[in-house]
Amino acid sequence: MTLSLQDCRALDAQDPLRDLRDQFKLPAGVIYLDGNSLGVLPRTTAARVAQAVTDEWGEGLIRSWNSAGWFDLPQRLGDKIAPLIGAAPGEVVATDSTSINLYKVLSAALSMAAVDAPTRRVLVSERSNFPTDLYVAEALCRERGLRLHLVEPGDITAALTPDVAVLMLTHVNYRTGAMHDMPSITAAAHAAGALAVWDLAHSAGAVPVDLHGAQADFAVGCGYKYLNGGPGAPAFVWAHPRHADRKDPDIWQPLAGWWGHAAPFAFTPDYRPAAGITRYLCGTQPILSMVALECGLDTVLAAGPLGGMQALRKKSLALTDLFIELVEARCAREGLGLATPREHAARGSQVCLTRVEGAYAIVQALIARGVIGDFRSGDPQAGSGRTGSVDILRFGFTPLYIGFEDVWNAVEQLRQVLETAEWRRPEFNRKNAVT
Amino acid sequence: MTLSLQDCRALDAQDPLRDLRDQFKLPAGVIYLDGNSLGVLPRTTAARVAQAVTDEWGEGLIRSWNSAGWFDLPQRLGDKIAPLIGAAPGEVVATDSTSINLYKVLSAALSMAAVDAPTRRVLVSERSNFPTDLYVAEALCRERGLRLHLVEPGDITAALTPDVAVLMLTHVNYRTGAMHDMPSITAAAHAAGALAVWDLAHSAGAVPVDLHGAQADFAVGCGYKYLNGGPGAPAFVWAHPRHADRKDPDIWQPLAGWWGHAAPFAFTPDYRPAAGITRYLCGTQPILSMVALECGLDTVLAAGPLGGMQALRKKSLALTDLFIELVEARCAREGLGLATPREHAARGSQVCLTRVEGAYAIVQALIARGVIGDFRSGDPQAGSGRTGSVDILRFGFTPLYIGFEDVWNAVEQLRQVLETAEWRRPEFNRKNAVT
Repeated sequence: MTLSLQDCRALDAQDPLRDLRDQFKLPAGVIYLDGNSLGVLPRTTAARVAQAVTDEWGEGLIRSWNSAGWFDLPQRLGDKIAPLIGAAPGEVVATDSTSINLYKVLSAALSMAAVDAPTRRVLVSERSNFPTDLYVAEALCRERGLRLHLVEPGDITAALTPDVAVLMLTHVNYRTGAMHDMPSITAAAHAAGALAVWDLAHSAGAVPVDLHGAQADFAVGCGYKYLNGGPGAPAFVWAHPRHADRKDPDIWQPLAGWWGHAAPFAFTPDYRPAAGITRYLCGTQPILSMVALECGLDTVLAAGPLGGMQALRKKSLALTDLFIELVEARCAREGLGLATPREHAARGSQVCLTRVEGAYAIVQALIARGVIGDFRSGDPQAGSGRTGSVDILRFGFTPLYIGFEDVWNAVEQLRQVLETAEWRRPEFNRKNAVT
Repeated sequence: MTLSLQDCRALDAQDPLRDLRDQFKLPAGVIYLDGNSLGVLPRTTAARVAQAVTDEWGEGLIRSWNSAGWFDLPQRLGDKIAPLIGAAPGEVVATDSTSINLYKVLSAALSMAAVDAPTRRVLVSERSNFPTDLYVAEALCRERGLRLHLVEPGDITAALTPDVAVLMLTHVNYRTGAMHDMPSITAAAHAAGALAVWDLAHSAGAVPVDLHGAQADFAVGCGYKYLNGGPGAPAFVWAHPRHADRKDPDIWQPLAGWWGHAAPFAFTPDYRPAAGITRYLCGTQPILSMVALECGLDTVLAAGPLGGMQALRKKSLALTDLFIELVEARCAREGLGLATPREHAARGSQVCLTRVEGAYAIVQALIARGVIGDFRSGDPQAGSGRTGSVDILRFGFTPLYIGFEDVWNAVEQLRQVLETAEWRRPEFNRKNAVT
């Protein structure tokens, strides 16, 4: 029997993570199922950013590089990200954008392969990977005369032929919410002699990640999705210690700026990479966005005493299970399909529904009712082998601030939008949104 | 006869730009001569950033990418930077860091040269250029098998031999304040068949720049110095329209992210560069730091009705002339030299004094007295052919908020620190500052 609204309220009342929601300023009348795109505002952020603007910048001025610890922010924030992704302190820096960090680690990985295994001239990725990852890979392959081999999700291990230098994957797919088995795929890459580079954009803060346990080689991720760092928050980068310190002169990443120098204030004309992950820094970082990111990280770390990522994961699966169950029970005749795997081990923290007609308008009608998800085109040109030509309605469930009643209400709104054909109204069918 | 404090007050009273100072929150008791490192806080910034945090992010959430114009910020801010550097609307984007933007334009310039003039295999720069520029150039030369040829300032045109692909220079030298003649050096580069790439970090907002007048090829610059964008504010990048749209598939810059795609929301697996300068965008930008940068740009644009960059330049030269004159008159026997050119055409908006002993401690003693400048090591390893082993005391004069009385008072404090040997105190001789 399907759960009722009262059942969902009871689940919220029993939820040990329920109070974590109080860390956020949630707009009234909104059920926000887009934390996979932009996390919500923590209560501490406005005051912390104001302090950075008014006191640290306004009063401290240049002195705040020392006195307010600005210069160490990439490492300090990196140390807060590390436990969320199975990395050790000192192994992660928060900096730049995900795309740029991916360029750094792919460059390093390809350089390592060029030294260690020069006959390997192929970079493998998934055709339905987030496109910016593919653009960065395409640019680097062009630059270095390598071949970019894009495959469907089921064909990844078969593609790990002896000419493959690097396998680059996004852990949780942005369109379908499907999650790769990081340990086994990394092991397959290593067994085939390739390096494994992981993009954690849709997994850091959403699902438990154990980079060391998986023996991954490099990873990057995003600060503004499940880490609640704010719009365009700086991203992060990790390199396994077995790679981070490699001394071969041809193996450092090429975005060689002064923040990655062994002695940044010596101002020597020659580049000497800093030890460890610090060499993955480049130029001066946007401090106001960095301090906001720290507030976001603290909201995730607050789950630590309550069981941390494992507890968040348990709730996330309960939320996405409930959403799937309610959609299938209450919107059964509305032409919705499921793009997200039912199997827990293969699911991230989002649920993607498919629909042949009107997906965009349905999302707009839901937004007008205060249920914010988003739309992703299923145009086959977009490269999804999984969904064909159907479009996608994407709903992210951030267990820090989404509850079971929210899920019930979201499905009820979806049911009403579909049963009343409200989505056919002209105002929901104008494609002007960029998100 | 040297000007008196009263004379300086009279100059301030007559200064047509005097009221521009009211745009800023200047800390009490501070004379801030470090705007060349981090500009001061505009009065509008705190409220604007708070609005972006609380309203746009907190309430608008993902919708603000459209409704608050976040997605267009790189272009909108670029259009505000354009008139300050002699570029046209649509030719500049604000994004990423200066180092990363330099990597983009150097990559593009070297790729162009590889197509148009493949026998040119040398990148020329100045040994005393800001080191991060040299690190980026070094990394790219290593990557592409080119030679990086570093020369002294006087040897630049002689170095423009037929094997030179690109000349990369910083317009105003960070250590000495010396300014290159951009039009004549660019013309010399072009006459020699090379492209000219300019770093405007210490000139945008400080001195008039006319990229089109000089027929420059590419330029980058910094948002947090004279543009008052806040700590680590996003930087900017410009490409001459004759280059920006080149369609050769091997000529786009390699940091190919989704913000630089022709159709960023089509999510196609293949990269197609956007038209014009937009292809120099890569990943999602730090919005909180972007909105702060816009407030900073507005403070410089406010000088427009009062004569704009020409009026700011006139005042800047009057300030630096006065500083030099007062130091030479009032600190004549204190062992100070002048690293900055006396000739106006060769001077930026800063004055750098040299000193064999105690430069670091003198700067610390001045900071303790509220006069904030900074120290730069003159270690010959740092590559300055101009200053030998003497150290540098660096003072930046931002005409938007520095007045003539400030100059007089700063020199008076310097005189007292030197004449009383106050700088010999142990607390001023501990080298723990990172700036």
